[in-house]
Amino acid sequence: MRRPLIALLTDFGTRDAFVGIMKGVILGIHPAVDIVDLSHEIPPQDIFAGALVLRSAVPFFPAGTIYVAVVDPGVGSERRALLLETQRGFFIGPDNGLLSLAAPPEATRRIIHLVNSAYFLTPCSRTFHGRDVFAPAAAHLSRGVAVSQFGPAIPHMERILLPPVERRDQEVVGEVIYIDRFGNLVTNIDEAALRPFSKERLFISMGPMRISGMVDTYAAVAVGSPAALINSWGMLEIALRNGSAAQQFGITVGCEVRVTS
Amino acid sequence: MRRPLIALLTDFGTRDAFVGIMKGVILGIHPAVDIVDLSHEIPPQDIFAGALVLRSAVPFFPAGTIYVAVVDPGVGSERRALLLETQRGFFIGPDNGLLSLAAPPEATRRIIHLVNSAYFLTPCSRTFHGRDVFAPAAAHLSRGVAVSQFGPAIPHMERILLPPVERRDQEVVGEVIYIDRFGNLVTNIDEAALRPFSKERLFISMGPMRISGMVDTYAAVAVGSPAALINSWGMLEIALRNGSAAQQFGITVGCEVRVTS
Amino acid sequence: MRRPLIALLTDFGTRDAFVGIMKGVILGIHPAVDIVDLSHEIPPQDIFAGALVLRSAVPFFPAGTIYVAVVDPGVGSERRALLLETQRGFFIGPDNGLLSLAAPPEATRRIIHLVNSAYFLTPCSRTFHGRDVFAPAAAHLSRGVAVSQFGPAIPHMERILLPPVERRDQEVVGEVIYIDRFGNLVTNIDEAALRPFSKERLFISMGPMRISGMVDTYAAVAVGSPAALINSWGMLEIALRNGSAAQQFGITVGCEVRVTS
Repeated sequence: MRRPLIALLTDFGTRDAFVGIMKGVILGIHPAVDIVDLSHEIPPQDIFAGALVLRSAVPFFPAGTIYVAVVDPGVGSERRALLLETQRGFFIGPDNGLLSLAAPPEATRRIIHLVNSAYFLTPCSRTFHGRDVFAPAAAHLSRGVAVSQFGPAIPHMERILLPPVERRDQEVVGEVIYIDRFGNLVTNIDEAALRPFSKERLFISMGPMRISGMVDTYAAVAVGSPAALINSWGMLEIALRNGSAAQQFGITVGCEVRVTS
Repeated sequence: MRRPLIALLTDFGTRDAFVGIMKGVILGIHPAVDIVDLSHEIPPQDIFAGALVLRSAVPFFPAGTIYVAVVDPGVGSERRALLLETQRGFFIGPDNGLLSLAAPPEATRRIIHLVNSAYFLTPCSRTFHGRDVFAPAAAHLSRGVAVSQFGPAIPHMERILLPPVERRDQEVVGEVIYIDRFGNLVTNIDEAALRPFSKERLFISMGPMRISGMVDTYAAVAVGSPAALINSWGMLEIALRNGSAAQQFGITVGCEVRVTS
Repeated sequence: MRRPLIALLTDFGTRDAFVGIMKGVILGIHPAVDIVDLSHEIPPQDIFAGALVLRSAVPFFPAGTIYVAVVDPGVGSERRALLLETQRGFFIGPDNGLLSLAAPPEATRRIIHLVNSAYFLTPCSRTFHGRDVFAPAAAHLSRGVAVSQFGPAIPHMERILLPPVERRDQEVVGEVIYIDRFGNLVTNIDEAALRPFSKERLFISMGPMRISGMVDTYAAVAVGSPAALINSWGMLEIALRNGSAAQQFGITVGCEVRVTS
């Protein structure tokens, strides 16, 4: 028998037991679930990074997974709590855009305003909705409570978007949107945007870096050399073989990247 | 069927497989358990921080949970190994105060001196009791071995206490006891100690910081401003909205905090 | 009923959901498994450190455990993917030596070249075999697919070895091979190599450090003093009580250690 699967993403870190406490709450309500951590090292309050990491994970999880995501600088304020239903599963978290790259409104069957306090912890704090609102809702959903029980359906939610890519005749201009643990530089340019170019002959410039041609693997270039490739998210990425491109070239999120033929 | 739940807290970090090894030992003895991590990033040898984090988690776990806590600078010396039974569950770890905020002696039904080596790993090292003593004891307990089998009941255990709060006529003086991942400053002043004050009109001073009035949520103050609130532990906390109060004001554990009317 | 156990070791860190994604893939293929993390903080591309940490864990896991290890600078290149069967369990990962300290060729019943793409994710990327090759293979193996289904048996694999210890008449010369989370210095000198010496009277020198005699526990020396002991890996280790020997003495991996009588 498949146990329901709950996947967690937060900016809580792993020092303080905040995440462990959410798991205690879930297992107290529904012991027969499996819980998987996506990341708890989202930079504090960085909704965009959290949304990107969540988006990167969802396609690889079983349908029906319940995602709980908490990067929530507005906790306890007027921002709403959401429960979204999509074809891929269920998404629970604050209405601040965090869920909207993984579960964009057009892919969402129902947007539920999570207000039914029967499924909250009592007393419900105003500083830790991960523990008091989102984890209990996920646990109750996993044990079979109907989506409609959690609150009214609403028509809109906050959303964030990837920064747009500029496509010109012989040029695509984008930017670095994420830097991973290895210092690899992920851009907002996807494979489709590069179709007009010859992969072997295009040029990429980013900060002080100049790269000629794309490769298929990190190991295709010499140690210490930069490589441009389509990464596991399906995006153009600049990496340094066995090193950190971010550190080596002093590049941060937002840095412009330019692809020319 | 509920699988027994074992919650782990250590200062072992997550680089070295020490924690994974404890889980391997547990699952080798009793495969049908769920294991949850509370934290493995307790600062090395910081028994007080470990005790605080453990205390923060226990109220949110199901009754009957088995907690294994290892911050153990005296491993292999004469310090005793303990198994405590309380109304909330079972606590296994060294007798150095680590368990005593979550399971204070007055709440403890039985204090067992963990000496029955039938439930240890063989050979039992003198440097890694997390693996050789505490994890196996938790696993055997989870599969139904009676508490009394692990060793004799003893009358006393080491305990640590929160530093006392000074209450005067128009003033409460406490200190910072913990700094969380966000740089929020947790004090030893609980909600009850603030009852004599008007929350809207009290004054708080800590190092170079002056705060007037308390709020309910982090989002109630402007970005970059300090906020005083009752946190998810039920304690007075000073936070900086979307920033680190600890870094911004150079405050460390032990720093005095003064509340006046 | 025992659920099959899959243990993961990578250099992926825990910021980016790479590890969570591997777990999503596994649970999508076979929901009824338990997954344990050994470490995901192996220094990027440090195959030797990964091999050591994996070796330290295996003896403490149940027989039949499936280990997935990914420290894989050659991902997508000609390096092979392996599935090894030993008496202890199964080892899945790149053919770069990473598996070879835990599963040395002489202990290996079968070395399988993992090539049957029926057990890979489709499409299979060239940058993330942890997700597309190794995790799916582990999941299929855990649900009962025969080892021989994954590819042909091959006679050889890459291996790495511990650096040799020099044994002379009254002297053993080794080196630091690993530094743990506490700053303890693990050497390549095992207990057997020290048998010719009197533990109470030997001398150890390492960088600026001089230690006379070995002890059994960290707590046997004064706070701030160095201690030499046989650690939980069974190796000679130099520690600083309640401190970091690595930091205090500026010692890194590769530093020579000399034991004399």
